[in-house]
Amino acid sequence: SDEEKTITATLFPGDGIGPEIAVSVKQIFEAVKAPIEWDEHYVGTKVDPRTGSFLTWESMESVRRNGIGLKGPMTTPIGKGFKSLNLTLRKELGLYANVRPCLSIPGYKTRYDNVDLVTIRENTEGEYSGLEHQVVRGVVESIKIITRQASLRVARYAFHYAQLHGRKRVSAIHKANIMKKTDGLFLECCREVAAEYPDIVYEEVIIDNCCMMLVKNPALFDVLVMPNLYGDIVSDLCAGLIGGLGLTPSGNIGDNGLALMEAVHGTAPDIAGKNMANPTALLLSSVMMLHHLKLSDHADRIHNAVLTTISEGKYLTSDLGGKSTTSDYTKALIDHL
Amino acid sequence: SDEEKTITATLFPGDGIGPEIAVSVKQIFEAVKAPIEWDEHYVGTKVDPRTGSFLTWESMESVRRNGIGLKGPMTTPIGKGFKSLNLTLRKELGLYANVRPCLSIPGYKTRYDNVDLVTIRENTEGEYSGLEHQVVRGVVESIKIITRQASLRVARYAFHYAQLHGRKRVSAIHKANIMKKTDGLFLECCREVAAEYPDIVYEEVIIDNCCMMLVKNPALFDVLVMPNLYGDIVSDLCAGLIGGLGLTPSGNIGDNGLALMEAVHGTAPDIAGKNMANPTALLLSSVMMLHHLKLSDHADRIHNAVLTTISEGKYLTSDLGGKSTTSDYTKALIDHL
Ligand SMILES: CC(C)[C@H](C(=O)O)[C@@H](O)C(=O)O
Ligand SMILES: CC(C)[C@H](C(=O)O)[C@@H](O)C(=O)O
Repeated sequence: SDEEKTITATLFPGDGIGPEIAVSVKQIFEAVKAPIEWDEHYVGTKVDPRTGSFLTWESMESVRRNGIGLKGPMTTPIGKGFKSLNLTLRKELGLYANVRPCLSIPGYKTRYDNVDLVTIRENTEGEYSGLEHQVVRGVVESIKIITRQASLRVARYAFHYAQLHGRKRVSAIHKANIMKKTDGLFLECCREVAAEYPDIVYEEVIIDNCCMMLVKNPALFDVLVMPNLYGDIVSDLCAGLIGGLGLTPSGNIGDNGLALMEAVHGTAPDIAGKNMANPTALLLSSVMMLHHLKLSDHADRIHNAVLTTISEGKYLTSDLGGKSTTSDYTKALIDHL
Repeated sequence: SDEEKTITATLFPGDGIGPEIAVSVKQIFEAVKAPIEWDEHYVGTKVDPRTGSFLTWESMESVRRNGIGLKGPMTTPIGKGFKSLNLTLRKELGLYANVRPCLSIPGYKTRYDNVDLVTIRENTEGEYSGLEHQVVRGVVESIKIITRQASLRVARYAFHYAQLHGRKRVSAIHKANIMKKTDGLFLECCREVAAEYPDIVYEEVIIDNCCMMLVKNPALFDVLVMPNLYGDIVSDLCAGLIGGLGLTPSGNIGDNGLALMEAVHGTAPDIAGKNMANPTALLLSSVMMLHHLKLSDHADRIHNAVLTTISEGKYLTSDLGGKSTTSDYTKALIDHL
C-alpha cells in the first residue's frame, strides 16, 4: 500500500571474495524488492592517485552523504606504514560502536546450541590509540586511552540497543582490578548509564572470567559492552561459538544514525573468483542494515531465508561442508524468500 | 632402593576453602610417601603488624629459601590501595612465567574432548605495569610495557618447556597488527628463541583469532606463549574448555628453578569450613610441583588417582555434580593411589 521511498546505501564490495558475495547480496535485495539503491565504490589495494591513499575521497563522502553502508572484506597491504582500512574507516567516520549479534544458526551444528548474545565494542580508542614508543633500547610502551566521552557514548548505545531489542541484561566487561583507572573510568560511565535503565539488569564481569563463562555457558550473557581490545577478543570468541566469522554479521555505528555494516571475515584470496565463497556474513550484515533503516519486513524475510536454507542443508558452500557454488546458494536463498 | 632426600616446600593454605584443600593435599602426600616436608605459612587477610602487609616476611623468605612452594587461594581485601597478594608474590619473587596445563579429565564431561594444551604467560609486565594516570579530566591512560629481557625470558621458558615435555608446536599469541611496537617486540623475541629450536614448529596467532580457534578446535594448539593480559584471558578460556578453574593447575616459575604452584580459583567463602570444597586444582598444582622437583613417580601416582576417581564418578564433590565431602573424595583418591 505505502509507496516506499528508495534509500541510497553505499556498497564497498572490497577485495578477494568481496565482489562475489556483494553480487549475491544485490541479487537477494532485488528479489526481496528492498527499496535500496546501491552507491558502489571500490576500496581496497588500489591507490587513489589523488590522495595516495587506499581509501578514495568519493568512498568516504559516499558513506557520509548516504549515512548508511555495507562493506565486504578489504585487504590492507602488508608493510610498515599501512594502516588497516577497517580502522581508518572507523576512525574517519567516527563509528564509535561495533555491534556483533551472535545467534546460533539452527541448521549449523557447533558445540553450542541457542547462542543468542550481542557484543558491543568501543570502536575508537583504548588499546587502539596508536600511541607507542621505545623508552630505551629493549623497552617499549603502548598507551591505552579511555575517555569519559567515548565510554559514555558506547555505554549509552549498549543500553539503548538492549532496550530497543527487548534484551534484559547488559554486562560490562573489564579488567578494572588491574587497570583501575582506565577500566575503572569505563565502568564508572557504564554505571551512570545503567542508572537510567532500571529495567535492564546491569553487571560487571572481569574479562578473564567472562571468557571462561562464555565457553562454559554462553546463555549467562545477553548484551556485553566493553573497551576496544576486549571487544575485539570477545566478539571473535563469540563468533567461534556459532561457527566463525563466515556466519557473523557486524555493524559499526556512528553519530546521527550513521552506520556501516561489514562482514568481518577475510578476503580469502585462495578461493576468490571461483564462485565458492559463502556470502552469509555479508548477507546477515545487510539484514542488520535493513533493521537499522527500519525495513524490518525485508530484513526478516532475508534472515529467515538464510536460516531455512542453512537448516535444510541442501545448498551449502564448502566452508559449511556443502558442495554448492555461491550462485547456487544464492538461488536457494531466493527460492526461500 | 635409593633413599630419597626430603625436600622442604613452602605451603600457603590461604583463605576460605584454602586450609581444607591443603589438608587434602597433605594427606595424599603422606599416603603416597612423597619426600616432602611442608613449611607452612599463613598469607591472607590478616596483617603482619611488623610490615603492615598481608604478606609476612617469613612467608616470602620461606619460598626464597626453599625454592619451591604450593599456594591455595588468597583473598585480597577490597578497597583502594590493596594490591592483589597473587600479584605481589609474582613480582616480589620474580616469578616470570605462569604455566597452565589444560588437560581434559576423561570422566568429567564438557563440550570438548581430549583438550591438551599449555598456556605460558609472561607474568611480570605488560598491561600489569601499574602505570596509569589521568591526563586531563575524563581522559586516562594505562601504560603497557614490553621489554626485550622479559619477553626473551618467557619465550625461552616456553620453548624449553615444550622440548622437555615432548611438545611439537609453540604459538606466540599477540596483537602486533595493532600494537606494532610492544607486541612486535614480543614476537621478535619469540622468533629469536624459535630459531634455536628447529624441531619445534613456531607460529604466530593474533589474539582474537586465537580465541575463535580455541573455541572451535582447541586441538589446533599445543603450547601457547603470550604477554601478561592475553595470558590471563586465554588461560581462563582454556580452563573453561575442560571445566573451569577448579580442575586446572597452575605454576609460577622464576629464576634458578624457583617455583610457586597455585590453585587459581577463588576462596569460595560460602562453602568454607563445610567440608565441601574440591581440592583438585590444588592437588594438580601439587602434581606440577612434584614434576618440577623431578619426583615424577609420585606425581604420576597422584595424577592417575585424580583421573580415576573423577572418571569413576562415585566420590565427587558438589561442584562436579557429586555428593561427597572433601574428606570422602580425599579418601577415594588415597584408595586409588
Ligand atoms: C583487522 C583488525 C585490525 C581488526 C581489529 O583488530 O579491530 C579486526 O580484528 C576486527 O575485529 O575488525
Ligand atoms: C586475581 C587477578 C589479579 C589475577 C590476574 O589477573 O593475574 C588472576 O586473574 C589470575 O589469573 O591469577
